[in-house]
Amino acid sequence: MKFCSDCGDKVSLEVPQGDNVLRHVCSTCGMIHYQNPNMVVGCLIEHDNKILLCRRAIEPRYGLWTLPAGFMENGETTMEAAQRETHEEACAEVDLVQLFTMFSLPHINQVYLLYRATLAGAGFAPGQESLEVELFDEADIPWDQIAFPVIAESLKLYFRDRQAGHFSIHTGAMIKQDEAPPVFSVELLGEHG
Amino acid sequence: MKFCSDCGDKVSLEVPQGDNVLRHVCSTCGMIHYQNPNMVVGCLIEHDNKILLCRRAIEPRYGLWTLPAGFMENGETTMEAAQRETHEEACAEVDLVQLFTMFSLPHINQVYLLYRATLAGAGFAPGQESLEVELFDEADIPWDQIAFPVIAESLKLYFRDRQAGHFSIHTGAMIKQDEAPPVFSVELLGEHG
Repeated sequence: MKFCSDCGDKVSLEVPQGDNVLRHVCSTCGMIHYQNPNMVVGCLIEHDNKILLCRRAIEPRYGLWTLPAGFMENGETTMEAAQRETHEEACAEVDLVQLFTMFSLPHINQVYLLYRATLAGAGFAPGQESLEVELFDEADIPWDQIAFPVIAESLKLYFRDRQAGHFSIHTGAMIKQDEAPPVFSVELLGEHG
Repeated sequence: MKFCSDCGDKVSLEVPQGDNVLRHVCSTCGMIHYQNPNMVVGCLIEHDNKILLCRRAIEPRYGLWTLPAGFMENGETTMEAAQRETHEEACAEVDLVQLFTMFSLPHINQVYLLYRATLAGAGFAPGQESLEVELFDEADIPWDQIAFPVIAESLKLYFRDRQAGHFSIHTGAMIKQDEAPPVFSVELLGEHG
């Protein structure tokens, strides 16, 4: 951020009075421009004992597989965001069952929410941002071609819970370690349910 | 938003190609400025069978009671945000137990997360944004002086769960109805646990 979105003049980085974090502050109108994490919301859909995955038609991670999910918009609920993203990426209508995972990804200022869901109709197809949409048996999940670590971690938790015969809500964080290729430590806040 | 924060020129509202939502788009550099919901994160702290409330020293709702909570910052996890806000508003160190409520408030583009927590030390005191911090028995909760409907709803769910001897994670939305004074309908996604 270089300019004030309210008056158009230059902003500088400073700690406002009563605050303890560097903010973009307008030198002319005094407006403080806060920047906050975004929520990415989507669905983990089970149908006929299989899981629905989308192959990405966009960067980042073009060509890799993921769950339908995307940035929550103003004016909607997290549930509406999960259903809208699933409709956009997989042309599927879904019924939400329950929240499944909530992971903070502080290195990219995101909080990822995934809901367990079921297909409300049998239909699905690639949306504009997907190359393919397919149902996978657990044994066929392309683990080495999953787009994001948070998706792989959520899928692992899902199959672990399904094996145990009981789904929990898993909340925690994935902390990027200072290694190359990047490694994430998964911190879960007490298992629930 | 009137000006581009990247180049300082004027922005206009338009639907970018491949999108279906009006965005602020810079007419000069083409930057699309997305606006997304914010997360408000805090703690529901039980100590000696009482609940910790803070009386607000800031607007909105100056002088009314609330739970320690505030906007999540970039670079932190939701758990860190809950602990930081509790430290700032109630000068208290807490251990988080588990997520308790997640409510979407689409009329103000917020998602509210409250964690059940316990005091890690006995100490608490008003921070800069609080006039008073006090522990309340359930019978003494000032229900007609609670700052926000989402806080009152979360407290009600807490006492209901405590009575039942089992805490769930409650996820849903509070939808503002078109009435004055405003009334909220509470939509909970399947009880869990």
